[in-house]
This record gives sequence, structure tokens and C-alpha cells, in this order.
Amino acid sequence: MNSTVDIGKFYYFFPQAVAVVGIDKNVMPAAWHTPISADPPLYGVLISPKRYTFELLQKRNGFTVNFLEHDQAHLIAKIGSTSGRDINKLNEFNIKFVPAEKVDGPLLQDSYAIYECEKFAVEEYGDHFLFIGKIVLIHYRKEIVSSGQLVDEKKVTPLLYFGQDRYITINPQTLSVFKRK
Amino acid sequence: MNSTVDIGKFYYFFPQAVAVVGIDKNVMPAAWHTPISADPPLYGVLISPKRYTFELLQKRNGFTVNFLEHDQAHLIAKIGSTSGRDINKLNEFNIKFVPAEKVDGPLLQDSYAIYECEKFAVEEYGDHFLFIGKIVLIHYRKEIVSSGQLVDEKKVTPLLYFGQDRYITINPQTLSVFKRK
Repeated sequence: MNSTVDIGKFYYFFPQAVAVVGIDKNVMPAAWHTPISADPPLYGVLISPKRYTFELLQKRNGFTVNFLEHDQAHLIAKIGSTSGRDINKLNEFNIKFVPAEKVDGPLLQDSYAIYECEKFAVEEYGDHFLFIGKIVLIHYRKEIVSSGQLVDEKKVTPLLYFGQDRYITINPQTLSVFKRK
Repeated sequence: MNSTVDIGKFYYFFPQAVAVVGIDKNVMPAAWHTPISADPPLYGVLISPKRYTFELLQKRNGFTVNFLEHDQAHLIAKIGSTSGRDINKLNEFNIKFVPAEKVDGPLLQDSYAIYECEKFAVEEYGDHFLFIGKIVLIHYRKEIVSSGQLVDEKKVTPLLYFGQDRYITINPQTLSVFKRK
């Protein structure tokens, strides 16, 4: 093993599903996000203060988290390399959406699952802010779910980010299950 | 799309790389983790107060984050279903490791990359605590890295967790690159 104190972009944690954060009339793909709590159900996204989404998150009381498939990588790359300060991405890229029910953000119609999140907590850490939302409503394509709310690996190809404009997805044939005794 | 306020385990964010958190003489796989900041380089793991690792994280000043390949799923399942309160997992499962250089935790020798993290911040959110570490040293297998510290999708099969004891990995042939203009 090599060792380095040159931490750089520490890309080793990838791949990671892309979370498309929707708020107001804007969308941005976030590669830094995680569940925070099971009960209450909390979800966190890390957003740089440089982003237009950051401004919106400070003003609004909620946001959506949209999960899309690998065949949408070209679109996600576009919405990740443009700013809502300059263009209305939803219009510009002909993104199909409807308004969320409980928060002020879009539900992207090509998503296989979407969380509606009410703002729960905000904290600054280093050069990003952690915005935590409480999941109050979930939308999902019924046909991609197997028993117990699990995503069926044969029916969905989650869009995973692999660092520096690279996207990838799973190989369903590699699924391994190790039941607890 | 179906909609539900029955939030349940909201498994839709999976798959997610498994981060094996090492501290003292113990290891546990975490599926809830994320980068937090680029500069300083911060990494966060969500840990339930029920876990033995939680006790250790409160006492110690750092931890390791180990990334392993898909062929280690059987081992990760074992260390995820046992507690360091009952057994020494490193001994019990014959896990090869050496001590970290800057923090008090193991470096798992089958990892393709490992972060050594000094404790930076701790915050309680809902039923979990977010432990944030500052990455002070990275170990990596040189042969799995392509240019710019990127993980080479043809040379590593990252272990991804897919919810409820299911593991999966990537399909390297699905890599798509969309360069920014």
C-alpha cells in the first residue's frame, strides 16, 4: 500500500448514488449526501456556499431529493455544470416535473424514487454546509420495488457518480445476500 | 408514481459503498457516511448510540475508514452482525491488519483505500450521531488508481451495500464520462 498526506480530492469513497436536489425552480446533482437518522427519518445533503442551491436552501423550508437511472447521466452532467443563477435548468433542458406536494421544489418525472424533505437542521462544517431534511413524503415507481421497500436490482439501474464527470451503474448479477443468523 | 407517508427505511438511496470504521481493536461496517468538506478534508460517519463503536468514538481521538472489494462481502456481513462487546472481531475472523500511523485504529490489509481520520466534530441528529473526522493520511493500493487519484473501474470492484444484507458491485462497462465544456 502507498501512503500520502496529500489528501487531494480523496475520491476513494466513490461510487455514490447521485441525489438530485430540487428546490424552488432549480435542480442540482449532489454526490455528497447520506441518511442521518432512521426515526425521525432524516436525510442530509452537503452543499457549498458557492452554489445557487445554497441560497435557495437558506430561504426555503424544504427540498426534494430525486434518484434517477444511469441513462439520465447526460442530463445530470448538464445540470451539474450549469447554474440556476444563469438559466432555468428545468426549462432549458426540457425536464419533466410536477411541483412537490409538501415542499417548494420539483418532482422529476424520470426519477425512480423521490423524497420530499422539510428543513430540519443546518450546520456549517469546513467549506460546506450540511442541510438536513426530515423526509415527510416518498414517491416511487411501484414496479422497481421488491418486498420490504427494497430497490429491485434487476429493475433499476441507479445512477452512480464515480468522481470527475464519470458515471457508472451496478451489475445486477453480482448481488450477494448474507442473511443474519 | 406511488406516494406514501409511511417513510419506513427509505432504502431508495442505496447502493452506497461500505465504509468499514476501525477504532481501537474494533471494526464495524457503516452504510451511512459521506464526505463533508473538501478543504479541510472532512469525512463523516453516522453511528447509532447502540453500537460499541459509538462508545469507542466518544473515548478515542480518531478512526480509520476502510474501503474493501465485493469479494469481501461475506466478511463484512459477519462484522456487521456481531458486536465488539462480545468478541474481538479482528481475531475471531482472522482479519489481517496493521495499526494506523496517526490514529488508534486498524488498517485492514485487504482494503483498496483507507483514510486515517482525526476526530473533528460530533453532533447528535435524531437517533444517530454524526462523527466527523479530518482525513490526515490516505493509504491506497497504487495499482487501482488511474490519473488524478481516481479509482480505476476496471481494477477495483467496490463493495456496495444495497440494503437489508444485500451487497452488489459496479459494472465497469457502464462507465460514462461527460466532460465539462
